Amino acid sequence: MSGEGDFIALMRGLASHPAARGLMDDAAVLELDGRSLVLTHDMIVEGVHYRPNDPAGDVAWKLVAINMSDLAAKGALPLGVLLGFSLTGASEWEREFATGLGEALAGFSVPLLGGDTVAMPPGAPRALGLTAIGSAPVGGVPSRAGAKPGDLIYVSGTIGDAGAGLSMLERGHSDLETNEALVVAYRRPAPNLALGRALAPFVSAMADISDGLLIDAARIAKASGSTVHIDLDRVPLSAAFVARCGDSRESRLSAVTAGDDYRLLFSADPSRTADIAGAAARCGVTLTAVGRCAAGEGLTLFDAGQKLPLPARLGYEHRGDLA
Amino acid sequence: MSGEGDFIALMRGLASHPAARGLMDDAAVLELDGRSLVLTHDMIVEGVHYRPNDPAGDVAWKLVAINMSDLAAKGALPLGVLLGFSLTGASEWEREFATGLGEALAGFSVPLLGGDTVAMPPGAPRALGLTAIGSAPVGGVPSRAGAKPGDLIYVSGTIGDAGAGLSMLERGHSDLETNEALVVAYRRPAPNLALGRALAPFVSAMADISDGLLIDAARIAKASGSTVHIDLDRVPLSAAFVARCGDSRESRLSAVTAGDDYRLLFSADPSRTADIAGAAARCGVTLTAVGRCAAGEGLTLFDAGQKLPLPARLGYEHRGDLA
Repeated sequence: MSGEGDFIALMRGLASHPAARGLMDDAAVLELDGRSLVLTHDMIVEGVHYRPNDPAGDVAWKLVAINMSDLAAKGALPLGVLLGFSLTGASEWEREFATGLGEALAGFSVPLLGGDTVAMPPGAPRALGLTAIGSAPVGGVPSRAGAKPGDLIYVSGTIGDAGAGLSMLERGHSDLETNEALVVAYRRPAPNLALGRALAPFVSAMADISDGLLIDAARIAKASGSTVHIDLDRVPLSAAFVARCGDSRESRLSAVTAGDDYRLLFSADPSRTADIAGAAARCGVTLTAVGRCAAGEGLTLFDAGQKLPLPARLGYEHRGDLA
Repeated sequence: MSGEGDFIALMRGLASHPAARGLMDDAAVLELDGRSLVLTHDMIVEGVHYRPNDPAGDVAWKLVAINMSDLAAKGALPLGVLLGFSLTGASEWEREFATGLGEALAGFSVPLLGGDTVAMPPGAPRALGLTAIGSAPVGGVPSRAGAKPGDLIYVSGTIGDAGAGLSMLERGHSDLETNEALVVAYRRPAPNLALGRALAPFVSAMADISDGLLIDAARIAKASGSTVHIDLDRVPLSAAFVARCGDSRESRLSAVTAGDDYRLLFSADPSRTADIAGAAARCGVTLTAVGRCAAGEGLTLFDAGQKLPLPARLGYEHRGDLA
């Protein structure tokens, strides 16, 4: 085997149950007594998915948030979470983790139902897991597949803030107070569960943006058997992002490949435009059409109508989501 | 904080939802539309819960089995599992893991629904997690609490085989072929889901024996607010165990504190004796009354009617089950 892709291929061979959705989606969708249960499990590893000196409370928040983001992409209402925690004997870190976990549980209105704590060998990095279970309406659980030629492609909120925040932290910037919004976007992502539920009836495909707008759009294209065109100049940037990184083709390319946005990316038929606008208004968020779906395959990138070569890296591929 | 107990206390402070059962049980029990969903998540860490040179297929089997054991203790029918897998680049190991996982999924008739794979930093031990979801009958999901004075205490199968197998492996014994049953008991535990479902209507409390008969009995005593008396001389030993370890007070004390049995431990009113015997007969297993419940608190150990001091160590405490 050459790595993660091969292992996921082995898992796909085992996951033949329809609820697994071929391991091509953000979550599993289990039909039970006319109700759709949405199940997801994400892990984060110290030094891989978070920085060893990230505040423990923020690590806890992020662990919950990334799983809530998967539920949001399915339009699901969270029912509970199970925690898999690695004890390393760092009691202050663990106390702060518990505080951040409590804040995240309250913030997303989801109860802690159980889990497991394990002792790690001395010096080993922490590996943390969280399972989330949610409830979604019958028959209407969006998937990554389903985008049709002619559909519009939307994103929620702004793109690239978390990536800019991470970049600042990695460079050891000291002007955190002036650009705090970008660091907060990285450390305390805020997936919008209510928005996911409001949008679910109107979308043809939906996913969360965890690894980068471009790579997640490419996954929708692949799962849907269509091509997705993204207009780089339409990608919404925050004022904080522009203040920090400027508004250039280069900064926009960094935004759409940065990952950690935890925004929603979805396709919808143009006849749904008023419904989409209504959902945005009810949830008090901005939704932006950033592209369209067409016959063909793969991803195509435009800037002011001009076709651009795809960047060598569309986003993060370190994460091998099985659901 | 002084360690795991303190962290679990923090988690208990967060887990106020009734489905969490105060984090005192083998699993969470979520009531949903008149159906009881049973949720459990267990992790295993290389060098802590399994030996680094244990065969990868056996590690996969064990990861599934320990979670199935939690479902069995709730009388639940498994609906699916989610895997959290650590990639380390050891492709042969990962292929064998996938093979063993497939065997376990088939063996326990449970589908793989999804999960996550993460890359570990070089040299880090593997941390593997599995979440299992099951369905249990309404209103009748056994807990650790519920044992009443006068109830009999039973175990399924034989006790101590896995511990004897682990001890042989740790001592590097070469006579594995003659005592293969003990090694198999350690490496491929076989929790009995059908037995759990058959017993659930008749028990007053039920748990699986994961950390040692004595420590798991003490947890039932604590959760039930009663005392549990265990008769050491009634604890059922296998022929393979006796051939290897003999049948002495010492070998029996090692059996009841060894852990990894993944048998069922339960209490039942004496009026249920015929029902219990019927369930045993239908499932083709042996159930043995090894003690009784009385007013008071804590655990008491007898051997041939003589009260024994409790061993300093009742079982494994490295595992901090939150559900």
